[in-house]
Amino acid sequence: MIPTVDETHDPALRSWVRSANDGRTDFPIQNLPFGVFRHQGGGERAHVGIAIGSMILDVSAAMRLGYFTGDSAAAARACGAQCLNDLMELGRPAWRALRLAVSALLREGSSAERDADRMLVPMEDADLLLPARVGDYTDFYASIHHATNVGSMFRPDNPLLPNYKWVPIGYHGRSSSLLPSGSEVRRPSGQRKAPDAQAPVFGPSRSLDYECEVGAFIGTGTTLGEALGIRDAAEQLFGLCLVNDWSARDIQSWEYQPLGPFLAKNFATTLSPWVVTMEALAPFRVHAAERAEGDPAPLPYLRDDEDAERGGVDLAVEVWLRTRTMRERGAAPVRLSRARFADMYWTLAQLVAHHASNGCNLRPGDLLASGTISGPERDSRGCMLELTWRGAEPVKLPDGETRSFLEDGDELILRGECVRDGFARIGFGECRGRILPAPAA
Amino acid sequence: MIPTVDETHDPALRSWVRSANDGRTDFPIQNLPFGVFRHQGGGERAHVGIAIGSMILDVSAAMRLGYFTGDSAAAARACGAQCLNDLMELGRPAWRALRLAVSALLREGSSAERDADRMLVPMEDADLLLPARVGDYTDFYASIHHATNVGSMFRPDNPLLPNYKWVPIGYHGRSSSLLPSGSEVRRPSGQRKAPDAQAPVFGPSRSLDYECEVGAFIGTGTTLGEALGIRDAAEQLFGLCLVNDWSARDIQSWEYQPLGPFLAKNFATTLSPWVVTMEALAPFRVHAAERAEGDPAPLPYLRDDEDAERGGVDLAVEVWLRTRTMRERGAAPVRLSRARFADMYWTLAQLVAHHASNGCNLRPGDLLASGTISGPERDSRGCMLELTWRGAEPVKLPDGETRSFLEDGDELILRGECVRDGFARIGFGECRGRILPAPAA
Repeated sequence: MIPTVDETHDPALRSWVRSANDGRTDFPIQNLPFGVFRHQGGGERAHVGIAIGSMILDVSAAMRLGYFTGDSAAAARACGAQCLNDLMELGRPAWRALRLAVSALLREGSSAERDADRMLVPMEDADLLLPARVGDYTDFYASIHHATNVGSMFRPDNPLLPNYKWVPIGYHGRSSSLLPSGSEVRRPSGQRKAPDAQAPVFGPSRSLDYECEVGAFIGTGTTLGEALGIRDAAEQLFGLCLVNDWSARDIQSWEYQPLGPFLAKNFATTLSPWVVTMEALAPFRVHAAERAEGDPAPLPYLRDDEDAERGGVDLAVEVWLRTRTMRERGAAPVRLSRARFADMYWTLAQLVAHHASNGCNLRPGDLLASGTISGPERDSRGCMLELTWRGAEPVKLPDGETRSFLEDGDELILRGECVRDGFARIGFGECRGRILPAPAA
Repeated sequence: MIPTVDETHDPALRSWVRSANDGRTDFPIQNLPFGVFRHQGGGERAHVGIAIGSMILDVSAAMRLGYFTGDSAAAARACGAQCLNDLMELGRPAWRALRLAVSALLREGSSAERDADRMLVPMEDADLLLPARVGDYTDFYASIHHATNVGSMFRPDNPLLPNYKWVPIGYHGRSSSLLPSGSEVRRPSGQRKAPDAQAPVFGPSRSLDYECEVGAFIGTGTTLGEALGIRDAAEQLFGLCLVNDWSARDIQSWEYQPLGPFLAKNFATTLSPWVVTMEALAPFRVHAAERAEGDPAPLPYLRDDEDAERGGVDLAVEVWLRTRTMRERGAAPVRLSRARFADMYWTLAQLVAHHASNGCNLRPGDLLASGTISGPERDSRGCMLELTWRGAEPVKLPDGETRSFLEDGDELILRGECVRDGFARIGFGECRGRILPAPAA
């Protein structure tokens, strides 16, 4: 079941946390995303928190104050772990119970306001960490616009491969190098070979790129050897974040045949810190992208009426760039692109159902990323490879700089928001990363 | 530094554990591989053990009896964890100290024999588990014979891709579905498409295969953003096991473009339970495979004199099959192939150095598998795809059965052994798995 709209989405709701009501925050009381934080200078222990305006609700602190009873108490207890995996494992009834209780607790008029100091932490006093221990990280390729664009660069004669409209193409990524937003990213070195060169050379990548993606965290998990119906697949989705799948295009094009990308991707992948739950996204579920005339229908294991009707998520994702020069001059970041996640060729439930269709087991906290989100328009292309057409059409920045690929000192920022008339806007926070030079040889 | 021969390799050494001295066991006192076991019917707790003949030394039990002091005590304490990760993290001096102490403890004449009952467990009374919590599992493609054979089937015009002799090709595998030896393996379902068919169909794989590989466990690990010289790469290797990378060839050939194998592989990967340490393998290090005339020299980051001289491991790996019919008739398994791990195109140190060359961090307990080990001879081909040339030349079994690919009820057994004049033979134990039918649709 895809979660439905309930009282927690009422746009008239206001919080006693004033910064949640300003109409600009990513985190009004209708959102309530989960994250994991550490008090700055407060030791090693991590805490599960919920973003509300410019503050974080420490769930365990609220529990100790007695604010959770019944079903929500079990969910709040699971937040005593130093990551979200235990909560994710509990399943949708527990997630929903905790959301209802937190919404009531933070609502204007709740007596909980008197304990504000004992359970709220200013976001600026916290370090945000990875939200979960990710056992396995899978990256898909679910945007047909991205696949077509990239395919036409790497295989001009054969841009979209024959399997694309049948198989939700994916591959395994690296979990060790998943990084929380704000981490610096070291430019990788690797082998690259010019098409006309006799031999490859080894050195710092010359075509470092970002990829703007959405990540989905798995909830209760599945059993090895058992497939998952697509109806049950939606049930597995805990929530979403933003993912920057940093990519070294020169390394990629030389190494990727025949087993796929490896060192071109596994040096770093940055996640936004707040996991926006599928409950929070209920008002923004839309019809899955329509397939073009002549496209095949999905095979039965990937087909479900409810998923077709409401499997899309009306989420806009944006990429912003701030170069070193812009930072030194105090200039604000500039937007490179904005795309609609609902344009993806495959829904999240289809990705989950496909992943489990061979009996592969998914564990609580596993991460499935969508692949680069690109739309049909030029300014909706979600990576620089596409925006600049492999460097042939450099991006011109307002201060006169140009970019074919990322340079040292560049900072990349992903943002996401859901907007719909009659509902409060909810945001995803930021997924930030800045490029450091390659290590000296 | 590649470990060197020392007193623990003396072929004259005998153990007071009689079964270690019979000349046939995989686990003489010169081996001392590590594993993780649970007492059958003895609760959930797992223990780190060392195989000796038909027995397991419970390292923590020996520690409690006071058998370890100094450096070996720290290593033995790390064995108090329920997996090998903590020991792996300590590094080679600790591994070496523990080996020396255990070798002395188990040696004929040691007073430790009087405590045999308090620290030894018969292997038949133990369930062997995965030896480590594997954070990330990487699978390479390091046999040029395998790559050439498979390439010529999938791409007849282009068998060995231009990057092969430059790049140690690898991809990320799935850690959630790593299984200990003895686990049953459910035949996966998935999409397959006949070359002349209009559309794919979904159903149980019709070309289920095994791949005989060697796996290497990472020791202390590396730092994100920092490469690792190849000299230091050898230092990262804790020990080796056998890996069966089960593969569904029909799913693979339809899904693998352009991002590599995914559902064709991630339904199950079976590991042998005993990790043979690089210390135990010291007498069996040999010159890396000679490159053919005209092949390029490795790029500098993959080149090291010591690695060229001693980077190979003279390990023979074998594949054995026992069908359901053979089992019912009480027939013994039949050998399908035997190959030399030393024939691989890339050494283990080269695989590690390449993996970290872009700054990707390796963590203690990470697993790097070699890829299918095939030699130049027909009976050294390490998967059925090659042995039967994609089913065109079925294997004939002694009882009259034939196999193009694996059938339900088939049991696959991998074995490995190191043999050298003047040294005790050491073995790897077995990596077993039996195929269950696909779940009912």
